[in-house]
Amino acid sequence: MEQVERIGVSLESGLLTKFDNLIAKQGYKNRSEAIRDLVRDRLSAEQLSNPKAKAVAAVCLVYDHHSTKLMEKLTALQHSHLLETICTTHIHLDAHDCMEIIVLKGRVGEINKMGEKLLSRKGVKLGKINLMAAELD
Amino acid sequence: MEQVERIGVSLESGLLTKFDNLIAKQGYKNRSEAIRDLVRDRLSAEQLSNPKAKAVAAVCLVYDHHSTKLMEKLTALQHSHLLETICTTHIHLDAHDCMEIIVLKGRVGEINKMGEKLLSRKGVKLGKINLMAAELD
Amino acid sequence: MEQVERIGVSLESGLLTKFDNLIAKQGYKNRSEAIRDLVRDRLSAEQLSNPKAKAVAAVCLVYDHHSTKLMEKLTALQHSHLLETICTTHIHLDAHDCMEIIVLKGRVGEINKMGEKLLSRKGVKLGKINLMAAELD
Amino acid sequence: MEQVERIGVSLESGLLTKFDNLIAKQGYKNRSEAIRDLVRDRLSAEQLSNPKAKAVAAVCLVYDHHSTKLMEKLTALQHSHLLETICTTHIHLDAHDCMEIIVLKGRVGEINKMGEKLLSRKGVKLGKINLMAAELD
Repeated sequence: MEQVERIGVSLESGLLTKFDNLIAKQGYKNRSEAIRDLVRDRLSAEQLSNPKAKAVAAVCLVYDHHSTKLMEKLTALQHSHLLETICTTHIHLDAHDCMEIIVLKGRVGEINKMGEKLLSRKGVKLGKINLMAAELD
Repeated sequence: MEQVERIGVSLESGLLTKFDNLIAKQGYKNRSEAIRDLVRDRLSAEQLSNPKAKAVAAVCLVYDHHSTKLMEKLTALQHSHLLETICTTHIHLDAHDCMEIIVLKGRVGEINKMGEKLLSRKGVKLGKINLMAAELD
Repeated sequence: MEQVERIGVSLESGLLTKFDNLIAKQGYKNRSEAIRDLVRDRLSAEQLSNPKAKAVAAVCLVYDHHSTKLMEKLTALQHSHLLETICTTHIHLDAHDCMEIIVLKGRVGEINKMGEKLLSRKGVKLGKINLMAAELD
Repeated sequence: MEQVERIGVSLESGLLTKFDNLIAKQGYKNRSEAIRDLVRDRLSAEQLSNPKAKAVAAVCLVYDHHSTKLMEKLTALQHSHLLETICTTHIHLDAHDCMEIIVLKGRVGEINKMGEKLLSRKGVKLGKINLMAAELD
């Protein structure tokens, strides 16, 4: 179990009231939890700006499953890289469209390169590369 | 099969050269595909700014699976809403941390509300709500 | 002078060390200042997601000053709206390009509408609408 | 005057209709202009991801002008760097708050470093670093 420290923070009362209202609306049970999340978020953003940092990413694609051989090509692409493809989730959206979430682990720069290759495939209609900093705290 | 139209677009040659270089690097096979992706992206961003628009979202969470009863609470939360939870993928990151990807379908406003509830749970270290416009063509 | 409150926040030691390192690099003199900035940022983002909230915005445009009558049109546009245009700064970038920063005050929704009108003018090459929550304390 | 090329782009009719509606709402007079802006935006984002690329930035700060000597410190900071500070615009927001827009020219990495130093000053309540790619086309 990691050690926990307690620090003091001073804030203007008006600011504190607004923050308390916001986090209550979001469902936080206490301020420490909400502030920890702000801190982790900031550190994560910082880490992800470094192409060599380790990260996990959920690459989300929306594509037409009628596109000739797209699925085979996506699979081949995932196996042809140095990155670790952890898993893939396939969701049936409607008669035409699928969503595929490909979870990748590796360096930020490599993930972005691979993500762009996936997004640029013919038949892929929408895509996003969602990076998260791994090994935080 | 949907009908395809061909339009003419004029661009400065310098701009076109830079664009051609970029999309080649990204893996695009032709300009039309790259420009269609820019157009879909822009429309998707527009659609997602409306809280009432339909969307799918991959809510990605990183959390410590030792957190008391977090998994039960996350599951309960998913069942207590009007949103449709399509599926959940669970990934083992290391000895402590898991990543969970929860795919939700519904209105943008509802998805955001639910996403915030998930992200604010004690034990959830990092989280992102990744929306994609559904029913785009 | 507004009243200041002091609250206690508990964080894992590893997280705290990383945060201290980051904020030292950014130039913060103490943690309270850094955490207040995270809190204000979060509140600002929340406020700006509401189209009716009050905001100030710096709309930044890069454009070719040879574009016929663009400057007159931009000025006309600024005067034809309900929004308050506070000021405009014009910067000479190179032989062709200018940057213009137009500071607007009003509701988020109105600012975005006006910003889009400015960005869509022929001759405007690049543009961004940078909103900041007004009346935060 | 730079040479202009005309290219053909094929799009599904449904997609085209939605795009035409969106750009009409934004105020575009024709599709070429709207597509050129999408292309420039994408190239700008790409360029700005490189810390060594040249850029201009509008660093926007909201601060309390009662903060002891903040204005002197901000000015000193602007003169102590390798970056070129092109100009500064100061806006009176209300009895307490000012907005200051500092236009910087230089490499992306240097601008970010300087921007963080400005944002982390005591008394600065809100801040954003708004980068734009210089020397596009």
